[in-house]
Amino acid sequence: MLEHGGNLNDAARHYGRPRTDWLDLSTGINPRPYPAPAPSADAWHRLPETSHALEQAACDYYRAPRLLAVAGTQAAIQALPQLRLQQDGRPAEVIVAAPIYAEHAHCWRRAGHAVREVPYDGLDTALREGRCQVLVLCNPNNPTGATVAPETLLRWTAILAARGGWLVVDEAFGDTSHGDSVAALSDQPGLIVLRSVGKFFGLAGLRLGFVGAAPALLETLADWLGPWSISGPAQQIGTAALRDRHWQAATLQTLLSEGQRLHVLLARHGIQASGTPLFQWWPEREAAAFHAAMACEGVWVRLFTRGAGGIRLGLPPDEAGWSRLQHALNTWSQRG
Amino acid sequence: MLEHGGNLNDAARHYGRPRTDWLDLSTGINPRPYPAPAPSADAWHRLPETSHALEQAACDYYRAPRLLAVAGTQAAIQALPQLRLQQDGRPAEVIVAAPIYAEHAHCWRRAGHAVREVPYDGLDTALREGRCQVLVLCNPNNPTGATVAPETLLRWTAILAARGGWLVVDEAFGDTSHGDSVAALSDQPGLIVLRSVGKFFGLAGLRLGFVGAAPALLETLADWLGPWSISGPAQQIGTAALRDRHWQAATLQTLLSEGQRLHVLLARHGIQASGTPLFQWWPEREAAAFHAAMACEGVWVRLFTRGAGGIRLGLPPDEAGWSRLQHALNTWSQRG
Repeated sequence: MLEHGGNLNDAARHYGRPRTDWLDLSTGINPRPYPAPAPSADAWHRLPETSHALEQAACDYYRAPRLLAVAGTQAAIQALPQLRLQQDGRPAEVIVAAPIYAEHAHCWRRAGHAVREVPYDGLDTALREGRCQVLVLCNPNNPTGATVAPETLLRWTAILAARGGWLVVDEAFGDTSHGDSVAALSDQPGLIVLRSVGKFFGLAGLRLGFVGAAPALLETLADWLGPWSISGPAQQIGTAALRDRHWQAATLQTLLSEGQRLHVLLARHGIQASGTPLFQWWPEREAAAFHAAMACEGVWVRLFTRGAGGIRLGLPPDEAGWSRLQHALNTWSQRG
Repeated sequence: MLEHGGNLNDAARHYGRPRTDWLDLSTGINPRPYPAPAPSADAWHRLPETSHALEQAACDYYRAPRLLAVAGTQAAIQALPQLRLQQDGRPAEVIVAAPIYAEHAHCWRRAGHAVREVPYDGLDTALREGRCQVLVLCNPNNPTGATVAPETLLRWTAILAARGGWLVVDEAFGDTSHGDSVAALSDQPGLIVLRSVGKFFGLAGLRLGFVGAAPALLETLADWLGPWSISGPAQQIGTAALRDRHWQAATLQTLLSEGQRLHVLLARHGIQASGTPLFQWWPEREAAAFHAAMACEGVWVRLFTRGAGGIRLGLPPDEAGWSRLQHALNTWSQRG
């Protein structure tokens, strides 16, 4: 299994520092989550029937014509390569944008497809000159923050649809830049859009995400994922979060401001980072050393070891966290 | 997708009676669930890391050497046919005991395997005389309550293991008859045991179950299911339920007594039923009429339409429920 952020148990074991004494910046999850209401008395008890209220709340929030609720974007990331195999009866040529969230390439490869990783600026050429049936990207990208304009995505969708192919757009970090989203057009043939309540709403423990696609594909996906894949409480809490316009507006303002604060703090320490309001990333030359130095200060960051390597930092949850990060960065800057 | 019990929304829509006015007996879920403790503050927020406490609590309760937590038995039922396909590179000959929980045959067929359904009393012959690689059964069975002795299951495991095959034993309703379980031996090559906290603990909304099998197969299954498949609160509530020996002992006594009460009530209405303490089932000749008559009284039961057809009834949650069921059965008995 791939390694991911959020693995505080590993941090605690490796560095001998108790879980409670870490500042966890290793994910891009909003550190101030939506205040989950207590689920109804029978939510843990009953088999969770499909919730039309949840899917309607999601369609309203994401401005999408039709969405399928899934047990986290991860469930869809795992299912799509299998569905493609089932549909075609043979492996497909797949381009995965690079670098992005590693589960995409991992799952397409594991299903037996021929996967090629292509940098964002080479996608257009690779798509037009090659014969790939599937193109996968994150928009905005995790971890670099790179974005692709909706017009470009729609052009790529048309090219792929003409080949019977798919454009898979993972918008897990799309909540702070609605203008870049193609969710509203996700019922177009060939387009598949993934959304998540884990990041912006800070509800990664819910295991809840959504898929927008043409109706026939959504039905096939629903059948593949089977009944009751989303817990009853996740349905209720997700519905409340997706409907709460006041919290959403306030959170958007906070995240835009905090994201800027993180960017500026890093710049003051000579680090030119990019990303989204929920995280900053840079291709650190001494990535392993930086990661270890932060860990010694009890700050858990995400180390990327592939390619040139890099570091991703999420937002501290409070002023104590900002101070601790600042102190750790000072120590790093003043190293011998 | 297959139809299942617990679909009160369908009942409400079809019969125009509000959800809250139904006595739902359509599942075999304990109507008095384990009182779920409130999850910790960050359980909805953080990515749910693998919980060793949960898996240890499950090993202790199920008396199993090693278990993998899964997002409901359903997740494993869907994954196993895919893993088999991946392992063999071609479809297998599969025998599914009949009648059992319909998702088993459905999922093996959907993955392309050659599935034959064989009644419980024909399994031994079919296994020895045929060349099947996989045999799937529920023990005790849902819905008939039929059981197969552990010695027989171990003999079948040995036959299948010698062919490189699997015996899949779904013990979802095994909590009231620990003596029939083979969970303690589930690390034997060829044996796969499924357990669920949905039924006995009444926590179907958690989406939590366990798989016991040889270590290499558990690793392959864990990789297939991917990271974070179980929500954080499900881990915490599941751990508490699996550790609570006092609640478990009291619940076992209650269910044995209530199951007997249901069996006797049906017998008084001329119905010879079989099952487990959590449900009773019989091959009703007028199944559709019985189902409709109960629905008119606001009692939602499970109708089986395949083969000879049949009816399954779960336990009422309280005395008002018992009275309502009794009244509905009286009306049915006295029909013109």
